[in-house]
Amino acid sequence: MNAHLLTIGDEILIGQIIDTNSAWMSRQLNLTGISVNGKSSVGDTRTDIVAGIEHALSLADIVIITGGLGPTKDDITKKTLAEMFESGMSFHQETYDRIRAYFEKVGRPMPPSMQDQATLPDKALILINKVGTAAGMWFERDGKVLVSLPGVPFEMEYLMTNEVLPRLKSKFVSRPIIHRTLLTAGEGESAIARRLEDFEETLPPHIKLAYLPALGLVRLRLTGVWPGEIHPDSEQKLTAEVENYAATLHSTIGDLVFGTETQTLQGVVGEKLRGLGLTLATAESCTGGYISHLITSEAGASDFFAGSAVTYSNEMKSALLGVSPATLKNFGAVSEETVREMAEGAVKNLGSDLAVAVSGIAGPGGGSPEKPVGTVWIAVGNGTQTNAYKFVFGRDRAKNIQMAGIYALNMLNRFLDQLTHQDSR
Amino acid sequence: MNAHLLTIGDEILIGQIIDTNSAWMSRQLNLTGISVNGKSSVGDTRTDIVAGIEHALSLADIVIITGGLGPTKDDITKKTLAEMFESGMSFHQETYDRIRAYFEKVGRPMPPSMQDQATLPDKALILINKVGTAAGMWFERDGKVLVSLPGVPFEMEYLMTNEVLPRLKSKFVSRPIIHRTLLTAGEGESAIARRLEDFEETLPPHIKLAYLPALGLVRLRLTGVWPGEIHPDSEQKLTAEVENYAATLHSTIGDLVFGTETQTLQGVVGEKLRGLGLTLATAESCTGGYISHLITSEAGASDFFAGSAVTYSNEMKSALLGVSPATLKNFGAVSEETVREMAEGAVKNLGSDLAVAVSGIAGPGGGSPEKPVGTVWIAVGNGTQTNAYKFVFGRDRAKNIQMAGIYALNMLNRFLDQLTHQDSR
Repeated sequence: MNAHLLTIGDEILIGQIIDTNSAWMSRQLNLTGISVNGKSSVGDTRTDIVAGIEHALSLADIVIITGGLGPTKDDITKKTLAEMFESGMSFHQETYDRIRAYFEKVGRPMPPSMQDQATLPDKALILINKVGTAAGMWFERDGKVLVSLPGVPFEMEYLMTNEVLPRLKSKFVSRPIIHRTLLTAGEGESAIARRLEDFEETLPPHIKLAYLPALGLVRLRLTGVWPGEIHPDSEQKLTAEVENYAATLHSTIGDLVFGTETQTLQGVVGEKLRGLGLTLATAESCTGGYISHLITSEAGASDFFAGSAVTYSNEMKSALLGVSPATLKNFGAVSEETVREMAEGAVKNLGSDLAVAVSGIAGPGGGSPEKPVGTVWIAVGNGTQTNAYKFVFGRDRAKNIQMAGIYALNMLNRFLDQLTHQDSR
Repeated sequence: MNAHLLTIGDEILIGQIIDTNSAWMSRQLNLTGISVNGKSSVGDTRTDIVAGIEHALSLADIVIITGGLGPTKDDITKKTLAEMFESGMSFHQETYDRIRAYFEKVGRPMPPSMQDQATLPDKALILINKVGTAAGMWFERDGKVLVSLPGVPFEMEYLMTNEVLPRLKSKFVSRPIIHRTLLTAGEGESAIARRLEDFEETLPPHIKLAYLPALGLVRLRLTGVWPGEIHPDSEQKLTAEVENYAATLHSTIGDLVFGTETQTLQGVVGEKLRGLGLTLATAESCTGGYISHLITSEAGASDFFAGSAVTYSNEMKSALLGVSPATLKNFGAVSEETVREMAEGAVKNLGSDLAVAVSGIAGPGGGSPEKPVGTVWIAVGNGTQTNAYKFVFGRDRAKNIQMAGIYALNMLNRFLDQLTHQDSR
C-alpha cells in the first residue's frame, strides 16, 4: 500500500520553513506498513492545489495533505477540496464548540474567523483536533483515501497518531508488523555491521534489520512482517519472535547498546543517576557547555544535576577546577593529565558524586601536528576512580562539539554500569 | 521565471533524513529572482526518476535535482538522465584527476567505484565539484534547464553558489534585484509591524519589505526589483535606493536592530567584546549551559570567553557564584535579587569584565501562581553596573531555554552598546 505526502503553502516554497512534518509522517507510515512513494509541495492557489492533488491521487492509494488550513489562509484548501469532492459546506457545531472551549481555556477572545474554521465539507469525515482549531478531513473516492491535516507539527502529529494511522491501518494493513529498536553508541555503522554478520544470517526472510545512523549513534531496528496465514494470535507470535531476535541482537553487541525505542543517551544517564541517588557535574572546555545543555534539556534534570564549570581559559581551569598550573604548562590544556584533574576537581569543587570532563580542539584553529583539530580528551570519575580516553574526530567545529558531547555521555553511561556491576558483586 | 526542485532518494521517502536542502535552495533562488513553484521527491528507481523529471519539466522552466549521485547509488540517476537526454557516456579525465587529487589530499585510498563517478553524459555541461566526488550536470532541452547536483548539503551549496546560480541568473534573470536584510531581537513581528506602518507607506511599489520571524528574532528584508528600462547603471542606482530605505528602516527601529545579512547575535556580541578588549562569563541556571554553548559555537570564542558557571542547585549558586543563602531563602532562586548576585558573582569569581546571568523556570514542572513556568530573570553587569529584567515566555521547556538564551545575548549586546556610548561621550 502506497502513500503520497503533499504540502500546501508558500512558506515551504520560499524556503521560510523547513518541512520536518513529512519526514515524521514517512517514518510513522513506514512503521505502520505503508510505504511513501512520493512527496510534493505546491503553492497556495486553487489551480496549483487541484493539480497537486490530482497528480498525487494518480500516484498513490493514500494522499495526506498538510498545510493550507489556518484561519488566515482564506480557506482555499478546504474550499478546493469541497469542490473536487463535489461536496457542500456546513457549519459544524461540534467543531465550533470545541474551538470556543479552546479559546476560553487559553483566556483569549475568539476571532470572528473561527466561524469559517467550523464550516466544513459535508462529504468529509471530520477528524477532531483536540490541540488546535483546524479540523482534519478524511475523504474517500474510488477506493482511495485523501486526508487533509493542519501544518502545525504538534497538531499534525496529534491527528496522525490518534485519528489517521489507526484508520489507515484498519483499512489498508491486514498483516501484523512489529518493530523493535536498539540504540547504540561508540561504534560506526560498518564496524557494527561486521560484528552482526553472523546474527544477520540467522534472520528469517520475514524479519529485517535496518541500520539508522545519526551523529555518534546508530539505531538498529528489527522489523517483522507476519509471513503466513493470519490467525488471531499471529501478532502475538510475531511479537515474541521479534523480541527474541532483539534479545539475541542485544547480547551480541551489549557493550554498545544504551537504550531502546525513543530513549536518549542523556535520558538514560539521568534515569541511572536518579536510580542510584548520585549527583553529576560537568567540567567543559571545548564543548563549551554543550554537555550541560544536553543534560538539562530533559525535564527533571535538577534531581541529579549539580551544574557545570565551563572553563575556556587556563586560568579558569585552575580557579574553578583546581587544575594545577604546572600540569597545564607541562602537558597542555588538551591532555590526559589536564582532563583527569578537571574531572577530579569538578567532583571536589562542585560537590557532586560524579563528573565528566572534556578538553579538546574543536577547530578550525588551534591544531598542531601532534594534536590536530578534532583531538578530544574525555574523563569520567567519581573521586576514587577516573577513566580517561582520547578521541580524534574531524575538522568541523560544530560536529566535533556534538561528537564530544555524545561520546562523553556514552562514557558516563558505561561508568555508571560499571559502578552498578561493582555494587552487585 | 519558475523553478521546480526534485529530490531523488529513498532516504527522504522513508523519513531517515529531513530535507534541509530544498529550503536553502528556495531561499537562494528567490534572492536571485527565480520563484520556486513546486517541489517533489521520488525514490531511487528508473521509472520513478523518469516520471518525476518529466512531471517537473512540465511544471517549470528550471528543474534542479538533488541526490542519487553517490558512488553507492549504482549510478541510476546519471544513467537515467543520459537516456532521457539521448546522450552517450564518456570517461571525464578532468573529473577523475580531481577525485584522485581529493583522495590524495585526505590521505585515503581511492575506491574503484570512482572510475564510474568520473564517467559522465556527453551532452551535459559538467559543473566542477571542488568539495566532493560527484560532479554536477547541466542539461538543456527546448529552452528549459535541468541541473543535477549531489545531495550532500555542503556540496550542493558549493555548486549552487559557484556554478548554478550565476548561470541561471545570466540566462533567465535580466532585471536587477537587490536585497538588504536587518536583524532584530526583542520584539515580535506584529509589534515591529505597528512601528513600521509609516515607513511601509513610503516604500515605492518596486521595493518590498518582508518579515521573516524565527525564535526570538525577526529578520526584515527589503527587496528592490528594478522597475523601468534597463541601463548599465540600473543595478547601481537600485542598490543606492534600497540602501537608502534600509538606512531609514534602521533609524526607525534602531533599538531593535543588532546586525545585518547573515550575522548572528552571538557573533555580533563576540565582535564587540573583541573590539573592546573585554572578557565575558555566563552564570546559568535554567538555560543549563545553552548560552555558553551558543557563544562557543563560533570559532575564536576563546579570544574573549572566560567560561561559565552552570549552577543548577542553590548550593552551587552559593559555592561558585557567592550568591548569599539568605537571598536564595528570602527571594527564591528565580528572583531579581538572585540573578543580580549571580551576575556580580560571575564577574568576581570567574574573573571576567562582564557577565550575563539567567535564572528561571523552564518547565514543565516547578511553576507556581506567582512564578509560572516560563518566568525568567536575566541580569547583565560589569561589576559596577548591573541591569536585570524579568521575562515571561511560554510553557515549552525547549523553547523557554532557547528564548532565554536569545534574550540574554540581546541584553548583553545592548549593554555593550551602552558602554561604548558612555565611553564616547
